[in-house]
Amino acid sequence: MMEHSPRPQTQKTPAELRPVPTPYVLFLGDAPDREAGKTAVGIAHWRPEICVGQIRFPECRVDLGLPDIGVEEAIDRGAKSLVVGVANRGGEVSPGWLETLALAAEAGLDLASGLHTRLTSFEMIVAAARKSGARIHDVRVPPSPLPVGSGARRSGRRILTVGTDCSVGKMFTSLALAREMTERGMSATFRATGQTGILIAGEGMPVDAVVGDFISGSVELLSPDIAEDHWDVIEGQGSLLHPSFAGVSLGLLHGSQPDAMILCLVPGRLHMRGLPHVPSPDPFVCLRLNEELARCTNPNARVVGISANTRDLSPGEAESVLGELEEAFGLPTVDPVRTGVSRLVDGLLA
Amino acid sequence: MMEHSPRPQTQKTPAELRPVPTPYVLFLGDAPDREAGKTAVGIAHWRPEICVGQIRFPECRVDLGLPDIGVEEAIDRGAKSLVVGVANRGGEVSPGWLETLALAAEAGLDLASGLHTRLTSFEMIVAAARKSGARIHDVRVPPSPLPVGSGARRSGRRILTVGTDCSVGKMFTSLALAREMTERGMSATFRATGQTGILIAGEGMPVDAVVGDFISGSVELLSPDIAEDHWDVIEGQGSLLHPSFAGVSLGLLHGSQPDAMILCLVPGRLHMRGLPHVPSPDPFVCLRLNEELARCTNPNARVVGISANTRDLSPGEAESVLGELEEAFGLPTVDPVRTGVSRLVDGLLA
Repeated sequence: MMEHSPRPQTQKTPAELRPVPTPYVLFLGDAPDREAGKTAVGIAHWRPEICVGQIRFPECRVDLGLPDIGVEEAIDRGAKSLVVGVANRGGEVSPGWLETLALAAEAGLDLASGLHTRLTSFEMIVAAARKSGARIHDVRVPPSPLPVGSGARRSGRRILTVGTDCSVGKMFTSLALAREMTERGMSATFRATGQTGILIAGEGMPVDAVVGDFISGSVELLSPDIAEDHWDVIEGQGSLLHPSFAGVSLGLLHGSQPDAMILCLVPGRLHMRGLPHVPSPDPFVCLRLNEELARCTNPNARVVGISANTRDLSPGEAESVLGELEEAFGLPTVDPVRTGVSRLVDGLLA
Repeated sequence: MMEHSPRPQTQKTPAELRPVPTPYVLFLGDAPDREAGKTAVGIAHWRPEICVGQIRFPECRVDLGLPDIGVEEAIDRGAKSLVVGVANRGGEVSPGWLETLALAAEAGLDLASGLHTRLTSFEMIVAAARKSGARIHDVRVPPSPLPVGSGARRSGRRILTVGTDCSVGKMFTSLALAREMTERGMSATFRATGQTGILIAGEGMPVDAVVGDFISGSVELLSPDIAEDHWDVIEGQGSLLHPSFAGVSLGLLHGSQPDAMILCLVPGRLHMRGLPHVPSPDPFVCLRLNEELARCTNPNARVVGISANTRDLSPGEAESVLGELEEAFGLPTVDPVRTGVSRLVDGLLA
């Protein structure tokens, strides 16, 4: 910890978030299915207004409903960045993509990717970008140096999605909340903490890639002082009760100092994602622990609603489960896909 | 988290801990005071049997009570590694040290350092080590690739020191416990998680330098399956209620899956170390949260004793404070310096 770790970082100006310039052209390459192209699918769904088209190889099996274009036409249509919207198994960059990516960089498009393998590890791409002055955004790489978190109160209001587990709808719920709030005329910003969210938002903090001592500090940088009537809607990660990733979740909770939290869960999930030997936690315990630990940096933090992903249930089952959860928790309960999140925002305003 | 982050790392053999070969010669250089030389002081205190001597410049103001020797004599006395036991303000490597460090490396001594600035960032040192085949151990750099934690139960028994804050005696208490247990004929190993502890132990995991998603996994690697009657005594870090570092503490807690915990605190400390605006947490709350969250990976985890650092109190005050804590918690309470930790070990065996 700090006293054993003199940190020159904290004496320098901390890193700043470096936005990926918009509009985007979405690169799908040879994506064999929607799962492989889910980053592009997410961007096209949430930010169609910043997507000028899609770049697809003949063997591609995903269609975002955007114009099929090449690099030149993308530039003609105003694109500022090519975003790699496809993931290989293993998160690697496919050799077949390199020529197109280098061509785009050389033509002056910034490149952005959330893949595990960094675009900057390919000399061909780096050289192409150097020629044109284009920048490469490996959004899984945190900015540096990061500050150590202070826990000092910041102005404005913050809502954080928390979860019983990974993959329970925290990103989706956060995006839906920010959209609903904006549509009502509230001042709100989605603050992304995972690579898909970052590419949707155009900026953010890949909090699970941050070194332990800087997790809360990185979130303080992500969601700085804001206007008193502004809401930052912060994308949660993992779960305080997930044996693999809870450290990230707690640093994110402290750094967010949330006024309000939404607990996200998947009714009926029996075990933690990826860990068949670990049963799903009691959501009531999860709620209480999030409130108690959040009060370390915001004494008024509380969970104000439940977001349940009922995708695997029939409409009738979903309705009855949502009703049961609402009664059990005594909190507004939604499925952001089936019901929207307006009742959560009503609760915030009440 | 995992589903957004395909991780080739987990498919490879995880990194192994790489011990620093002993015996050591301790390098103090131009250390102006004991605080600057505290790493060397700690090693000489806890492991005098592995220290063949000290290397000091004429202006050095710290004396470990070891023979003053040079590189050649260190080798004659059997030294295998030169350990940088001094810290500059900022954790940097002083230019005046380089010649001696390079000389040692060229003569075949491994070099070890817990400083922020890596020894491997100096070409002069790298070149010298290359000539002789000596290795450079920057112990603040985690091994790579690290596994993602699974939470699966491991054999053997584990005790973890937890704290209300940073700098409350977790390392000291852990070392004292491991020594007491070994002296009683129990099978026990100190498992280091900070750079000073790592240099004392000769190996360990710099858990606060590990990327968020791998914190618990790194501790699973540090304390693997062990004999059923063996105790791993794991050095804690930070506090679940420290706004800067709690992510590290929670990942460490989950990865340790402790059977037993010792709560470490400093009676009378008013605010969190380094954060004058954050009051010290209620130690009872801290105890309960550690137990509750530890049960995520070990349902039987419990706090079995209190370790209070009463350095700033008079003997009479200390005695009365220890008595009050013992009564309030209903647990054996010690100051490892004043009273030793035998009552904590008695409690473990009871």
